[in-house]
Amino acid sequence: FRYNMGSFRGHALPGTFFIIMGIWWTIKCTLKYACKKHKRTSYLGSKALFHRIDIVEGITIICMALTGMLGEQFVTEGPHLALYNYKEGQWVQLLSWHHSTMYFFFGLVGVANILRFIINSFPISLIKLLLSNALFVEAFILYNHTHGREVLDIFVHQLLVLAVFVAALIGFLEFFVRNNVIVELLQMTFILLQGSWFWQIGFVLYPPSGGPAWDSMDHDNIMFLSICFCWHYTLHIVIVGVIYAFVTWLVKSRLKRFCSSEVGLLKNTEREQESEEEM
Amino acid sequence: FRYNMGSFRGHALPGTFFIIMGIWWTIKCTLKYACKKHKRTSYLGSKALFHRIDIVEGITIICMALTGMLGEQFVTEGPHLALYNYKEGQWVQLLSWHHSTMYFFFGLVGVANILRFIINSFPISLIKLLLSNALFVEAFILYNHTHGREVLDIFVHQLLVLAVFVAALIGFLEFFVRNNVIVELLQMTFILLQGSWFWQIGFVLYPPSGGPAWDSMDHDNIMFLSICFCWHYTLHIVIVGVIYAFVTWLVKSRLKRFCSSEVGLLKNTEREQESEEEM
Amino acid sequence: FRYNMGSFRGHALPGTFFIIMGIWWTIKCTLKYACKKHKRTSYLGSKALFHRIDIVEGITIICMALTGMLGEQFVTEGPHLALYNYKEGQWVQLLSWHHSTMYFFFGLVGVANILRFIINSFPISLIKLLLSNALFVEAFILYNHTHGREVLDIFVHQLLVLAVFVAALIGFLEFFVRNNVIVELLQMTFILLQGSWFWQIGFVLYPPSGGPAWDSMDHDNIMFLSICFCWHYTLHIVIVGVIYAFVTWLVKSRLKRFCSSEVGLLKNTEREQESEEEM
Amino acid sequence: FRYNMGSFRGHALPGTFFIIMGIWWTIKCTLKYACKKHKRTSYLGSKALFHRIDIVEGITIICMALTGMLGEQFVTEGPHLALYNYKEGQWVQLLSWHHSTMYFFFGLVGVANILRFIINSFPISLIKLLLSNALFVEAFILYNHTHGREVLDIFVHQLLVLAVFVAALIGFLEFFVRNNVIVELLQMTFILLQGSWFWQIGFVLYPPSGGPAWDSMDHDNIMFLSICFCWHYTLHIVIVGVIYAFVTWLVKSRLKRFCSSEVGLLKNTEREQESEEEM
Repeated sequence: FRYNMGSFRGHALPGTFFIIMGIWWTIKCTLKYACKKHKRTSYLGSKALFHRIDIVEGITIICMALTGMLGEQFVTEGPHLALYNYKEGQWVQLLSWHHSTMYFFFGLVGVANILRFIINSFPISLIKLLLSNALFVEAFILYNHTHGREVLDIFVHQLLVLAVFVAALIGFLEFFVRNNVIVELLQMTFILLQGSWFWQIGFVLYPPSGGPAWDSMDHDNIMFLSICFCWHYTLHIVIVGVIYAFVTWLVKSRLKRFCSSEVGLLKNTEREQESEEEM
Repeated sequence: FRYNMGSFRGHALPGTFFIIMGIWWTIKCTLKYACKKHKRTSYLGSKALFHRIDIVEGITIICMALTGMLGEQFVTEGPHLALYNYKEGQWVQLLSWHHSTMYFFFGLVGVANILRFIINSFPISLIKLLLSNALFVEAFILYNHTHGREVLDIFVHQLLVLAVFVAALIGFLEFFVRNNVIVELLQMTFILLQGSWFWQIGFVLYPPSGGPAWDSMDHDNIMFLSICFCWHYTLHIVIVGVIYAFVTWLVKSRLKRFCSSEVGLLKNTEREQESEEEM
Repeated sequence: FRYNMGSFRGHALPGTFFIIMGIWWTIKCTLKYACKKHKRTSYLGSKALFHRIDIVEGITIICMALTGMLGEQFVTEGPHLALYNYKEGQWVQLLSWHHSTMYFFFGLVGVANILRFIINSFPISLIKLLLSNALFVEAFILYNHTHGREVLDIFVHQLLVLAVFVAALIGFLEFFVRNNVIVELLQMTFILLQGSWFWQIGFVLYPPSGGPAWDSMDHDNIMFLSICFCWHYTLHIVIVGVIYAFVTWLVKSRLKRFCSSEVGLLKNTEREQESEEEM
Repeated sequence: FRYNMGSFRGHALPGTFFIIMGIWWTIKCTLKYACKKHKRTSYLGSKALFHRIDIVEGITIICMALTGMLGEQFVTEGPHLALYNYKEGQWVQLLSWHHSTMYFFFGLVGVANILRFIINSFPISLIKLLLSNALFVEAFILYNHTHGREVLDIFVHQLLVLAVFVAALIGFLEFFVRNNVIVELLQMTFILLQGSWFWQIGFVLYPPSGGPAWDSMDHDNIMFLSICFCWHYTLHIVIVGVIYAFVTWLVKSRLKRFCSSEVGLLKNTEREQESEEEM
């Protein structure tokens, strides 16, 4: 198993992570919303289930982040945790360190997901904030990532920064306007957009067919990529819409039992968190 | 019937669309506000009427978007749905594809207007969000639209981007501060501004008199256009103000019956939506 | 009486207008706040007085705007309402037209101040919005005002744009967070800053001593002006603070009667507006 | 005692100030939050203590600001309060004046901390606003501080501006969303980040080992510093998290008495302020 960020696989890996997490979060938040709507009185029951899911989610995110970090560090041409080469007097593989740093901040989101069940007074809204934070840091690093590269390379990364920054901003807004399902789904759309745009960058700069990268001088390529970005966005609006419709329909027609099961567990813990959410 | 976006008619068409929709939305939202204010208890009745109007509105928007998209694709020199010319190894008519994409996102607003009556759990606020979304996408595409053109051309399009972006931003804010009539009318002012500025661009770059475009090197033209933009804005403030005053007066003096008619229809549907609006 | 915006007096005039209005609005809003705080039950009485004051204020603003507009148009070298010189094929005195447009938007604020008492259903918050709007338009025009000038000239105008834009932004925020006295006073600080910075620009570019303008090439001048801007700001924080403290003390110690007088007038009108304010 | 801002010590001094204040504010706000949470009914008691602490805090901030201002003015090569050298016709040591101005605005925060106990009607939220204000002014001055310097120098200062601006922005948001402990802690993280980044700048531009500054031409240095900035940020997230966890645990396990002591003092004063906070 070998990859480098400056390669097709190096872009496909984070892209896949973001698409998986985006789809998963879309399903989860629609499920939560649908359960809450249809069973206002006893939806607490399903919360116990959601808590278990959250732990699995936390572990998954940490695994993804570790995969990314270790992959970046210990591939053949990676820095192997060396930061500065004192012999040659130069930094070692700074781009890999950039990527490791980004993965690390997403790892923090996973850690927070776990810590929440260990530490009792852990503020739940912090998880959302850390996700938004990880996205802001990612946008910041990506923005400082492409100095001195070619025009097309910079442009596709700028669009990525745009998607990441908007996702971060919506996440930050969500912190103030809590429990609004539409804002949450909007953020997921941008996380999905980010994921598929990573793939697009891979195809543009490192075509898996082995051919050369797209012509950086051809102005039409930039013109095309800017609408291509919108088409990706359309696609993800449709995906999120379909998931939302499907999950809502599922909850309505069959899974009414699912939400009402397991009522009565963990009530003490939940009541505390409830009061905190209304803080 | 033939037009090209790079022509007077190509700018007049979307301009006309936006002016029609801007005036219509101004009338609609003043009407809603006025009815709500004067007949707080029984204004639900008029909602049934508004719903029918919304369906007609949705169909109209879809028709406009389709006209725009098909027009862009199937005019004589259009791309005819071809995206890449493999023979010559170049993109086909990307500017037309840009315009089609913009029209498409406005089409989504129309689709949402219809879907709302088919799908029961459709969140109403999504329609506003999709309008804001379509405006953001339009601003994004217009921003990436004028690479490599002349100074004056870029400047008039930048002002257009400004108007579109502000309209989008206000629409997004409106999502958080719902049911504030002034914010809604402010957004309409910027949509009208956008519409008439499309016409202005047509007059500047493709004078219908057949004369040459304005001198791109003359710095005074830019100075003039920046205040001209403000004058357009003034005009639309006055138009919106007059419509607001007229409709309010009309509702007060004569149409009190109009609002109280048709009470009692569709009550079940409305109650659900009411509770959703308070979400 | 003769002045030109490209002169000391042309900058001192709007500067004086803004300083007068800034101080006046600071006094008014502190007075309102102090009366409201000390006489929560009967502060409606003073509202009748405030209404009369508002009419005078509206007329004053309109007079100032007219003075500015007419001054710009009909000075010796002004455009005298001519926009385009068809003989020479060029625009006439566009800078004067710029200034006239700015004055016009402030005139609208005055008109709204009057209209509010003529039209019954006039939304009060619109006045604040129009002030914010006038400031945004001023920032927009000033931003497009200095193309092709010298570095120092552009820099001092950019600082002006900054002050105007911040004042506009705070005014817009105030629209959402109504009746917060600190936010209102903050906006006044920036309006005062704008006023005194107009004077500063006059001193820098057109020294009234008759000497030459400051050296545009000397980098130290820019360095100095950027802290000078902060010192102006400090000064206005102190001025606003002193006015706030003085007026609050005055209301507390002596003018308790002032606020409670005139209770019972215009009650019907006020109740409507009250309910609108809670909209 | 001698230092110059253009030296290691000149950057270490403000850095130390910000780190001390950041850690102190983190402790204070966690303490307040923890007391409030565990003793909702009688937390007013601890307020008396907090008031005394606030006075000490105010005096400390003023001392720090004075140290900074006097240090900048009266070091050997400082301006000694001279602003313009009329003999040589040039500004005296403008950079020192820049620094003095920044310190001054932080001094205002300290003054407000004191004034609050002298003037009765002093709005408490003003203190937060003045802190945010001081940070905005600092960001503004630092932004205008590095004209004409080397690329690396500008880059590290830009990152500083970013940290300061974000801290200011969060402080401003906090003004609207009061009493949210997470937002407050987030601001502290950025104030700490600012503090340690001052140290980093010192190490980069004026290595205390006496060696030369980092190579401004080496692009890798910029790449490294942009992730180094993120690592500082991570560190401060951990520090704030640890302080939060420790203080919360301390309050829970031992200091329950601490919060409930001194109940009943200053009740009149507090009730006024309470009602003001709910304004």
